[in-house]
Amino acid sequence: MTTEEIRKEDENFMRKALIEAQKAFEEGEIPIGAIIVCKGRIISRAHNLTETLNDVTAHAEMQAITAAANTLGGKYLKDCTLYVTIEPCTMCAGAIGWAQIPRIVYGASEEKRGYRKYAPQAMHPKSSTTCGILEDECKELMQRFFQHRR
Amino acid sequence: MTTEEIRKEDENFMRKALIEAQKAFEEGEIPIGAIIVCKGRIISRAHNLTETLNDVTAHAEMQAITAAANTLGGKYLKDCTLYVTIEPCTMCAGAIGWAQIPRIVYGASEEKRGYRKYAPQAMHPKSSTTCGILEDECKELMQRFFQHRR
Repeated sequence: MTTEEIRKEDENFMRKALIEAQKAFEEGEIPIGAIIVCKGRIISRAHNLTETLNDVTAHAEMQAITAAANTLGGKYLKDCTLYVTIEPCTMCAGAIGWAQIPRIVYGASEEKRGYRKYAPQAMHPKSSTTCGILEDECKELMQRFFQHRR
Repeated sequence: MTTEEIRKEDENFMRKALIEAQKAFEEGEIPIGAIIVCKGRIISRAHNLTETLNDVTAHAEMQAITAAANTLGGKYLKDCTLYVTIEPCTMCAGAIGWAQIPRIVYGASEEKRGYRKYAPQAMHPKSSTTCGILEDECKELMQRFFQHRR
């Protein structure tokens, strides 16, 4: 694939993650969505459910990882790409590292709670990260959510 | 409580976490156990289940946090102490931080995958950490497990 084709594909998959984030928004959850893609196919979709489940561990990425492992029947997600609308936190980066996900694509950075501040080496040393895919849409949904709340 | 009384209480609760770790051992899981104590009462017990559940996120601490929040009916564990036999990893430290657990007690250090190497500031800034409680027993169970496997 050319760089342009990869970008197009990343945007397509990020749009699916954004649909998940929108669901979270409508449920009164911090609007973050994630999907996991294996060989061109979406194998899990999830959105943040910390309020609904009363559980700080119910981030979109955590649920997407658990669901993907279920689908594949193995806990290592070596042929997968994780798309998430917002930069993962330390907890999620740690989980992404354990799952050995080789490629992570996220929309917008999270300056306060993102893994890059507290645990920049949490992911697998061989994994690659792409950021800034549909950044404005991903960020705008978060801003709209927090404006709503005030 | 005096320092000696705190130490005694920590050892008593760590023994309960060790019982959980022993269960993991018997199930062929990396033998790590955790309990969460709220105002002197154990509100959750868990052991590592990553193999059984085929899920990298099923660490003892993660399950203990989810179960404790269920018991309390709230996701912040502000009056709780987490006891875990081995130093938490980055993922678990992140979860402990989100749950705002103010006190963490662990048995033995984990040089390779412990949070202190990759994410020393993952926990809540106001939380305190005590280590080395029943260290030898906690470590010995791990060593026995990995010797078994070779």
